Amino acid sequence: MTAAAPPPVIVLVRPQLGENIGKAARAMLNFGLTEMRLVAPRDGWPNPDAGPASAGADIVLAGATVFETLAEAVADCTTIYATTVRKRGVTKPVLTPEAAARDVHANTGRSAYVFGPERSGLETDDVALAHTIVTVPINPEFGSLNLAQAVILLAYEWSKQLPTQAEGGAALASPPEVPLDPPAPHGELEELIGHLVRDLDQSGYFFPPERRDATLRTLRTTLTKTGWSHNDIRMMHGIIVALGRGKKMQ
Amino acid sequence: MTAAAPPPVIVLVRPQLGENIGKAARAMLNFGLTEMRLVAPRDGWPNPDAGPASAGADIVLAGATVFETLAEAVADCTTIYATTVRKRGVTKPVLTPEAAARDVHANTGRSAYVFGPERSGLETDDVALAHTIVTVPINPEFGSLNLAQAVILLAYEWSKQLPTQAEGGAALASPPEVPLDPPAPHGELEELIGHLVRDLDQSGYFFPPERRDATLRTLRTTLTKTGWSHNDIRMMHGIIVALGRGKKMQ
Repeated sequence: MTAAAPPPVIVLVRPQLGENIGKAARAMLNFGLTEMRLVAPRDGWPNPDAGPASAGADIVLAGATVFETLAEAVADCTTIYATTVRKRGVTKPVLTPEAAARDVHANTGRSAYVFGPERSGLETDDVALAHTIVTVPINPEFGSLNLAQAVILLAYEWSKQLPTQAEGGAALASPPEVPLDPPAPHGELEELIGHLVRDLDQSGYFFPPERRDATLRTLRTTLTKTGWSHNDIRMMHGIIVALGRGKKMQ
Repeated sequence: MTAAAPPPVIVLVRPQLGENIGKAARAMLNFGLTEMRLVAPRDGWPNPDAGPASAGADIVLAGATVFETLAEAVADCTTIYATTVRKRGVTKPVLTPEAAARDVHANTGRSAYVFGPERSGLETDDVALAHTIVTVPINPEFGSLNLAQAVILLAYEWSKQLPTQAEGGAALASPPEVPLDPPAPHGELEELIGHLVRDLDQSGYFFPPERRDATLRTLRTTLTKTGWSHNDIRMMHGIIVALGRGKKMQ
């Protein structure tokens, strides 16, 4: 029998209140999710307000890990889902929580559900790093999901689609299709982007300078959609090096 | 076409904190439910703590009606669902939120979702009055849903199953279909590969020469899987040119 897809990690980007981190932990554990990652929590970590709000979900808080950037937090994840209620100027597929959960269960690598700060939500640069956007269909005249509520809806949909034991037996008969060359963990793509951008900076590619950020975002989207594997990425490193040599070897 | 089933009313039995009544209102309105009924709220009604916690769901609170008993609160409802996480000594059908929502949409009369007090949940006598029990499948080792979370999960499932506009209903908008940048015609990818291979040939990338064909095939596979659009490909042409300049512009 093939192994089930690993549960998604829950990434909270720049969370503001410890209380909300605790509530998110509680929401996760209700539906069996235990791996929480924090990106630059505003008040540092650990936060004394988190424990009391977690209603006993200490195991989640104790295991929470802290990162400086979102890219580092999802470096070992192959598929990244940005949760947002607003439309963004980023062209990515948009899924409901239900469709995203189907995805997560079908992925072979680790998936990450990424949530923005309480007040403002994810920034465009955070969303640019994701493969897919997850949006909860909500009352267009009153969209007011808080952080823990968004977490609980995604965790609930994930747990709903866990294969039952009876279905586990059926999986023996028809193993899921495994992609031949699965996408690399995100960290590898991040290194490739870093390598490319260093060389492009040296070559004067980003011009005029004030367009650099926008061009970088476009470049990131172009590379994120590739689904490149470890081997693809290794090849692209070699290609960047070779192109950088220009015609010297001619 | 038959009329759509009316939305369920949300009945809070002996709620303790005004804050939780406000949060329940917020949870409801997020998914388009507006009719709240309160049975013997501990601190009376209206409650000054409800408004601030409702995040603007005033329409729900303003319309909330108060009853002395559950029987009176659901007197006009034809089907009554008691939400509880624990098994009770009452023999009734037990449904998931999803199955209950299917039921509610199929009912012709009004349905009521009934929730117990924060601390203790519904009493056996309350449950006895219901036709059906709704239980959220939850982590058996950590079941800790609060009132507003239970409300939001049931409201969410109800709204998910609203008939869509296409079906003559008023479903909450699913995430908008984002026009993804479609893959470019194959000829454009072919030109990109040609451009890249010319430059790589000049830089001495293909070495040893007898591996050239195999490496080219791998490169082609890597680029073919990208799904790159016209704009992606145009960007990659620019990148190849820039990298070929090396550090000349530094």
